[in-house]
Amino acid sequence: MPETYTHTSVWHYRQGTLDSTPESTPIVREHAATLYVNGEPWLTFICSPIALEALAVGFLFNENVITSLEEVDQIKLKEEDRRIQVQLNHPAQKPAQFHRTSTGVSLQPHIAAHEVGADFTIQADKVIALYDQLMAQQKLHDQVGGFHSAALSDGESVPIIVEDLGRHNCVDKLTGLYLLRHATFIPRALLLSGRISSEMVYKTLALGIPLIVSRTSPTSLAVQIADTSGITLIGYLRKAQFDIYSHPERLIAA
Amino acid sequence: MPETYTHTSVWHYRQGTLDSTPESTPIVREHAATLYVNGEPWLTFICSPIALEALAVGFLFNENVITSLEEVDQIKLKEEDRRIQVQLNHPAQKPAQFHRTSTGVSLQPHIAAHEVGADFTIQADKVIALYDQLMAQQKLHDQVGGFHSAALSDGESVPIIVEDLGRHNCVDKLTGLYLLRHATFIPRALLLSGRISSEMVYKTLALGIPLIVSRTSPTSLAVQIADTSGITLIGYLRKAQFDIYSHPERLIAA
Repeated sequence: MPETYTHTSVWHYRQGTLDSTPESTPIVREHAATLYVNGEPWLTFICSPIALEALAVGFLFNENVITSLEEVDQIKLKEEDRRIQVQLNHPAQKPAQFHRTSTGVSLQPHIAAHEVGADFTIQADKVIALYDQLMAQQKLHDQVGGFHSAALSDGESVPIIVEDLGRHNCVDKLTGLYLLRHATFIPRALLLSGRISSEMVYKTLALGIPLIVSRTSPTSLAVQIADTSGITLIGYLRKAQFDIYSHPERLIAA
Repeated sequence: MPETYTHTSVWHYRQGTLDSTPESTPIVREHAATLYVNGEPWLTFICSPIALEALAVGFLFNENVITSLEEVDQIKLKEEDRRIQVQLNHPAQKPAQFHRTSTGVSLQPHIAAHEVGADFTIQADKVIALYDQLMAQQKLHDQVGGFHSAALSDGESVPIIVEDLGRHNCVDKLTGLYLLRHATFIPRALLLSGRISSEMVYKTLALGIPLIVSRTSPTSLAVQIADTSGITLIGYLRKAQFDIYSHPERLIAA
């Protein structure tokens, strides 16, 4: 069974100092498992690779495809748990339409190999200042709770901010606003209030953004893609400190 | 434009006392907007009803359906912003397969009208004790961070606990484990670490669970469905206090 988490290197920025030696830290793994029903692929779960049979059965029950376990003839995990094959004792209609709060369609990067912001460097305390601007400008989160916020920065200011109940919606809206406003600045940083999953990084590749910052955690796949693509990925930003998961060379200590 | 948030009544439980009079509190609205591309429905976003044109354009760009705004002939919002109609200047292939971290397929309740746990009451401090059991038994969250946890309780103990990187995966896994283990207890409470959205409540209807508890916020649609279905919905549970968003009559002050 694939592991639910792995370890990665992280560089700390604390009290004005950027560590030169990374520490090892545990990190969530993203596992993609495709559900096949009666031989037909239905959808791919991005999940933790535990209780995958339960995930399939629970999903089919909750979606009203089955009403009891007796309708399930067989469940098999194949290809290192990347396929969950469910055989029912009756035909089932694959749903024609999906909805989402926080998922997309493809798992492939928008641009396979794209050297992002090779020339871009930034002072560590500037990262904190930009993130403070996002926090200061988010309104719904402070008034209501339950909202995510996200912003695009040129590395100096934070011209585009959005809020939405979904993390992924925020990123799509930022991209859309950037295009619809015919914004002319070069996007240098994506600032997020929520977790950094692989999709966030894939989406960032499309705009060639070299820096992603969040106050929460990234997943291991997000870090891997950021590392390969030359993106600096920062998590756990709190007041005057943060952790760097990839490409620390872009940061200059104050 | 539909509002991004609304107000709802909330009863406080604080320091052993259950308020008899509710207070009004702001709450996130879930808006369902279906994206039509060249006249064909593609998927439904569950989102905040702001910047919907940007959401559509950003999604299509991030999914590589368009590479620039010039490919978009027209964007129209229809039916009180529940339809986002995008006309491209070229044909586009609707994606055949979706993946998800936290979404499902249907927006319809599993069981349209189902009187849940009409006879079930619970002491307020018992709710806190059950939630403490979930917190004590979650392992990955404490070791790694970035995991959600969820549990099914019979109202006395917490026999089924799961952890996953996705909130919705947790709920599906719980249901699946309940079925696969041929569990014989009557599920009385769904305990969640993450936000309570409408899907959580719909899924709970299938198992007839009368109590949903989270340490974070619900959405307005979640509260509305819980209210209609006779479910007691509790949010913002912290140490010895919580807020009740529906059916407070099920709770007995200690």
